[in-house]
Amino acid sequence: MNTACLGLVQKRFFTFAEPPHELVLESGERLGPVTIAYETLGALAPDKGNAILVVHALTGDSHVAGCYTKEDARPGWWEIMVGPGKAIDTERYFVICANVLGGCMGSTGPSSINPATGRPYGLSFPLVTIGDMVTAQKALVDHLGISRLLAVVGGSVGGMQVLAWCARYPEMVRGAIPLATTPRHSAQSIAFNEVARQAIMADPHWRGGDYYGGAKPDLGLAVARMIGHITYLSNESMRRKFGRQLRSRDALSFHFDAGFEVESYLRYQGNKFVERFDANSFLYLTKAADYFDLDDYAATGLAGAFKGSRTSFLVVAFTSDWLYPTGQSRALVQALKRNGLEVSFCEIQSDWGHDAFLLPNERLHTLVAAFLSRIFREGLAGE
Amino acid sequence: MNTACLGLVQKRFFTFAEPPHELVLESGERLGPVTIAYETLGALAPDKGNAILVVHALTGDSHVAGCYTKEDARPGWWEIMVGPGKAIDTERYFVICANVLGGCMGSTGPSSINPATGRPYGLSFPLVTIGDMVTAQKALVDHLGISRLLAVVGGSVGGMQVLAWCARYPEMVRGAIPLATTPRHSAQSIAFNEVARQAIMADPHWRGGDYYGGAKPDLGLAVARMIGHITYLSNESMRRKFGRQLRSRDALSFHFDAGFEVESYLRYQGNKFVERFDANSFLYLTKAADYFDLDDYAATGLAGAFKGSRTSFLVVAFTSDWLYPTGQSRALVQALKRNGLEVSFCEIQSDWGHDAFLLPNERLHTLVAAFLSRIFREGLAGE
Repeated sequence: MNTACLGLVQKRFFTFAEPPHELVLESGERLGPVTIAYETLGALAPDKGNAILVVHALTGDSHVAGCYTKEDARPGWWEIMVGPGKAIDTERYFVICANVLGGCMGSTGPSSINPATGRPYGLSFPLVTIGDMVTAQKALVDHLGISRLLAVVGGSVGGMQVLAWCARYPEMVRGAIPLATTPRHSAQSIAFNEVARQAIMADPHWRGGDYYGGAKPDLGLAVARMIGHITYLSNESMRRKFGRQLRSRDALSFHFDAGFEVESYLRYQGNKFVERFDANSFLYLTKAADYFDLDDYAATGLAGAFKGSRTSFLVVAFTSDWLYPTGQSRALVQALKRNGLEVSFCEIQSDWGHDAFLLPNERLHTLVAAFLSRIFREGLAGE
Repeated sequence: MNTACLGLVQKRFFTFAEPPHELVLESGERLGPVTIAYETLGALAPDKGNAILVVHALTGDSHVAGCYTKEDARPGWWEIMVGPGKAIDTERYFVICANVLGGCMGSTGPSSINPATGRPYGLSFPLVTIGDMVTAQKALVDHLGISRLLAVVGGSVGGMQVLAWCARYPEMVRGAIPLATTPRHSAQSIAFNEVARQAIMADPHWRGGDYYGGAKPDLGLAVARMIGHITYLSNESMRRKFGRQLRSRDALSFHFDAGFEVESYLRYQGNKFVERFDANSFLYLTKAADYFDLDDYAATGLAGAFKGSRTSFLVVAFTSDWLYPTGQSRALVQALKRNGLEVSFCEIQSDWGHDAFLLPNERLHTLVAAFLSRIFREGLAGE
């Protein structure tokens, strides 16, 4: 029995867009039916004013916190942030977390069965965008009978979804917390994703995306994950974690085994990842992140972002995040402020790189808890 | 006819360490015979006091400048630095450039025939270190009858060789110019190299290194090269070069073709590279770079580096080089100064990342030209 379990949760499924009412994607392509896997924690208040949508990053899922059974030892991906008494307090708030459209953890994606053929979509799955993910989340929120979210919260590619929510459905978002994110990818971020995709597509088991039922492109996917991992950590956090530590004392006995601790760590992360993730989903989700550009959603571009909206923002960036450097958050904050929006910005000193938003950080937790408390109280006061 | 040709050069080969007099490597393994491909430009002075050894970076070769025939349009890799009237002036200096031990451009490496078996070495090739590369270069310099080099010059992994020269054979090096280099790899640099190696080893054509005569692990090697390319450019240089430019106007018509210019560039670089480079050499040379640690060569560690040596140093780092950040050069410079060595240090403002040392830069060229002139004049004056 898992004594650390802070509450039982259940993975649920919501299916919509049944033909002929398919979801019309940003590309103009149509997709249906669409299933979204989601989990909820806490209780929805009678006035439905305490709902928080947590959106996950590139390879996350709906399992943000809690456990599926008393015996289940698998933690949620944001256990430190979400739960009773945590910053996103499930004794106070009703928390929703859904697997993104295009994902592989229960929501419709390239590994899902295409009802038209009875076989997995593979690359016949249409390209989805960050905006399409948000459209699907909106359908879920509607389905739950919630007309306004207290907050949308997410880091990294989750932060992009937060921004797309604010741009698309401003009247539905009371508070927005984009963490460690960017209004658009730099050429360097695109380059890292592209090399990761190339690693997958170079794997002969990928077979143009048609590998379901056979050997999977695990080696390529593992390399892709390793590339990602380097960008999630800072140079400093790698130095602290690994330095130049050798796994054996006998440096020159090396061949091409993992001589350094950092090599061993990357191989472990790569191999662990392929057990849970679908290579095609990795291709689709990284493409969605690369194509995300807030200018496409905020009608007047970043300069006019969210003008006239009443959403409150808490923007947080981490000093050692070199994937989405703090300057990218600062540009967003400046645009928000120029448009008269209420925005708090915090650049948190951290050595842990992009991953910092997933790690224990008292400052982050205090900021999030205080921001949510404030907008929740303001909501109760009928502001 | 190539009218831009600044002089004819010839690739020559020097073979030594014929059994039973094999080269004893740092690992204790023995290798022989060893062939080193090299080229020279300019004329050796009667007193042999004008010889400069240029050492190349990870994937370079002996062809530093000039052309093989009047029709040859292939430029040398440092044409902008080496030639008549250039900073490394071939009308004044005798320039030597050799392909490194373990390479694949004429020097003995894993793709060479193992005389014991009549087949390519593959992974039976012993691990070589930066120090082993320098030992082989020393044999060549001895063979050319040169007892003291006016200078050893190189960038990146070439800079490591410069440092190893100074540590191993201080009496043979009058001046040292390590550019854009580091006394040792950070965990992050090791991580990038490791993922690149994993990409190669994940290619089924790699076959444990035994692919000669059959299909080569081109896809894996291309991915490895792409990873390297990201680290050679700065975020800013990528932004200038590519920004988020799409190759076609119709962003959402994308699939997994190269939608962004940066993707197309990386694919081109990756594919071009596999035509000229051997995947096993890539494995060996990146491992040599990862294992390089100046502390292993300077008897008392970096703190006591080159103590008592009379070598003059010109150390140059580039502000936007995030592969070997300027702080790593500064640590080297501080150690040199503490030990009373004559050292000039310049941190050149550049947006072009690690690759800056290979690109036109007036400041760099002026610094190198002036440094060489000075030590050359001092040599003539019998200093």
